[in-house]
Amino acid sequence: MKDWKSIDAFFSPKSVAVIGASEQKGSVGSAIFGNVAKIYGTKAFPVNPKHAKIQGKKTYASVKDIPFPVDLAVIAVPSQFVPSALEECMEKKCGAAIIVSAGFSEVGEKKLTAQISELIKKHPHTRVMGPNCVGVMNNHSGLDTTFFSSERMQKPKKGNLSFISQSGALGSMILDWVATQDFGISKFASYGNAMDVDEADLLEYFGRDKKTKVITMYLEGARDGRKFYETAKKVSRQKPIIVLKGGRSEETSKATASHTGSLAGSSKVYDAVFKQAGIIQVNDLIELFNVAKLLEKEPLPKGNRVQIITNGGGFGIVTADQVIANGLRLAKLSQKTVSELGHKMPMATISNPMDLIGDADVARFKEALKATISDKNADIIMVLVLFNLPAIEAQKLSILKGARKKLAKPIIVISIGSDYTEKYMGKIEKAGFTTFTYPSIAARSMKEMASYAEFLRKA
Amino acid sequence: MKDWKSIDAFFSPKSVAVIGASEQKGSVGSAIFGNVAKIYGTKAFPVNPKHAKIQGKKTYASVKDIPFPVDLAVIAVPSQFVPSALEECMEKKCGAAIIVSAGFSEVGEKKLTAQISELIKKHPHTRVMGPNCVGVMNNHSGLDTTFFSSERMQKPKKGNLSFISQSGALGSMILDWVATQDFGISKFASYGNAMDVDEADLLEYFGRDKKTKVITMYLEGARDGRKFYETAKKVSRQKPIIVLKGGRSEETSKATASHTGSLAGSSKVYDAVFKQAGIIQVNDLIELFNVAKLLEKEPLPKGNRVQIITNGGGFGIVTADQVIANGLRLAKLSQKTVSELGHKMPMATISNPMDLIGDADVARFKEALKATISDKNADIIMVLVLFNLPAIEAQKLSILKGARKKLAKPIIVISIGSDYTEKYMGKIEKAGFTTFTYPSIAARSMKEMASYAEFLRKA
Repeated sequence: MKDWKSIDAFFSPKSVAVIGASEQKGSVGSAIFGNVAKIYGTKAFPVNPKHAKIQGKKTYASVKDIPFPVDLAVIAVPSQFVPSALEECMEKKCGAAIIVSAGFSEVGEKKLTAQISELIKKHPHTRVMGPNCVGVMNNHSGLDTTFFSSERMQKPKKGNLSFISQSGALGSMILDWVATQDFGISKFASYGNAMDVDEADLLEYFGRDKKTKVITMYLEGARDGRKFYETAKKVSRQKPIIVLKGGRSEETSKATASHTGSLAGSSKVYDAVFKQAGIIQVNDLIELFNVAKLLEKEPLPKGNRVQIITNGGGFGIVTADQVIANGLRLAKLSQKTVSELGHKMPMATISNPMDLIGDADVARFKEALKATISDKNADIIMVLVLFNLPAIEAQKLSILKGARKKLAKPIIVISIGSDYTEKYMGKIEKAGFTTFTYPSIAARSMKEMASYAEFLRKA
Repeated sequence: MKDWKSIDAFFSPKSVAVIGASEQKGSVGSAIFGNVAKIYGTKAFPVNPKHAKIQGKKTYASVKDIPFPVDLAVIAVPSQFVPSALEECMEKKCGAAIIVSAGFSEVGEKKLTAQISELIKKHPHTRVMGPNCVGVMNNHSGLDTTFFSSERMQKPKKGNLSFISQSGALGSMILDWVATQDFGISKFASYGNAMDVDEADLLEYFGRDKKTKVITMYLEGARDGRKFYETAKKVSRQKPIIVLKGGRSEETSKATASHTGSLAGSSKVYDAVFKQAGIIQVNDLIELFNVAKLLEKEPLPKGNRVQIITNGGGFGIVTADQVIANGLRLAKLSQKTVSELGHKMPMATISNPMDLIGDADVARFKEALKATISDKNADIIMVLVLFNLPAIEAQKLSILKGARKKLAKPIIVISIGSDYTEKYMGKIEKAGFTTFTYPSIAARSMKEMASYAEFLRKA
């Protein structure tokens, strides 16, 4: 394995060259250069032998003509020109090269693929990502080597989740969706055919990256199963790794071969490897980031006993059903807590779900929350709020923050509704609670969180 | 069973009295009267012996003092006054009475509960809904007997789904969420403790209601299991019934007893009854309405073979995984379709998923869609669109409509993203396609749709 520090040139280059930069609006070369130049200014160099200037900047015929060091080169030229372009980057001593171009092993191409393979062996100082990928984003610095226009795609907020995606298009689609959510992204990498940099290299790098707290991953097939397993096993003890595996059945694993050239692997083998390595495996795109946001924002629970507190009886029941269906347990609060709360709010049902009933105000929620935080019989707390009931003073909900003090237990707040609910859920999020819209997704995410905590206790 | 037509007084009354109407802002009696008066004008009558006028309207000391016929009475007074108020409504010959007040069997109360029970026996001409419910909404006429303020809760669009909820608060919370979605509601009823009108009466009524195409239901426990089963068995052959059962485990079924006074019933018994009766059972709130919208908008499929068409390879793979995980099958298009499409688009992978690849334009999607619609080997079509790829001209997507002509097969369009994607997904919805955001939810909904179609074929 090459030194993990070499990956840094992809995410924190001081200068970037775009080979195949273009003047033609809507083209890949134009979009990539536009995205890079926006942040890198005079340290962004267009390379294209047919133009003297691109997007107003002096353009070089070859990367070797650039009279400055180039840390990162992005190659977006037709596949037949890729080997020579890559060789020039290597001769220029670029630290990293991203090959965006497609048309290699994923379509059964052999000759050009072999040439690239030779170059990677000959010039190990230049790390290569791709081909057939969309490159990287560093959401803290603004670096973006993808070809997505800002009109069509929004940037996620800055945050602590990093995302490794074998598929570039799927990865960027998800990032666009993340922009609508309440959590942020640190770094993104799409590594495509993985001829040099692979999933394990990126795992290792993000495992050591101080701005990454949780690693998410879309994986079709590991290039080197053993290396992936060993790396994941090590990293998962430092930070959570959450994986969505594409191609889980015999039929769909065939499709991955023509997509990213991944070797089909038995889904059962992957399931076992993930489990052994302490990787959290999820079933779909929604889960991937919901589990991640929960792990990023909340402390790990000491067990899997969940206490539900609500002002809506039916809401509490359907959520409790989800808690149980996902293999978590309903907490049984101590007799002391039950009698103290029962004394303070005689009409409420101090059970699980704890139904504070429809006329509950924020003060009643706070009492219930404080008592449950102090009770050792509850590991995780779910607060379900019906905002449409007249008695709840939504504008006062931030006082719940006072009940929390330190992050001793994970607390999840759930509500479903339209504008009014969303407005106050946003405020609760800002007051330091993690919010979810659907009980089923919250319960599933909590289950993965509790399992990861158990894995760490046994590790 | 009383005549189903008697239920009509709840949904289409010509006049409405609110007993316990109030001047006090934020109170239940004020909110209900406000909601009713907004639509009923001079045919909305406040009843309250302590006031001469409420919200500017002449107020009566008793419902019996109103010098006009009253079709529907809404009773929102403290529980001890409910029996006498109800008796007056019955003597006034109201067709229907909704008892919003709580404090009866759900809290173990016996005396008042018995009095109401006697009155229901003595005066069968007045149908009674509740107690402990929020009443009804008729989204076509605007009738709304709930106590939710328009500030806190939005009204769903008008549509063809009707919703029966044992829990009033949960029901109205979901309606508020439905307002953010792309489908509409016809009628809503929360029936609480079900002392007279129960889930089966409402099923029967919605089964015959011309403005209801699909029936959704939140059920904690059926009051009369046999009646429910017989009614559902009959109605499910006319229109789909989709049920979310609350209290599915031993622990949570205890909670339903203190919530709506429902008798705990074994979850396995319910599962069997639902299956036998042709009821579609779902696991959570998201599923309830996603299955319903799919059944409302799309034709029933002839089988469970799904063809995926996409411009995103990874997107196709994760969706195909969901199709298989949910017990559906991947279609295998005929050799003729494969070779014809292969000829027209040599770079695409004409398989399943069918990967039109990243440079696909709308014309390529249209060709693929037309060919798949004509192919007898595909029963359901999923079109997955990555809108952020430069080649797809989102503004032209409505031409896909031309490929559809008649509704021969269900077609579901899926995309995930932010503003740009949402904008064009809205246009696709308007062009007559059903859209989903998450492959997992779409696949699960399709599975229920295919199972229901199979149930009907065998019924």
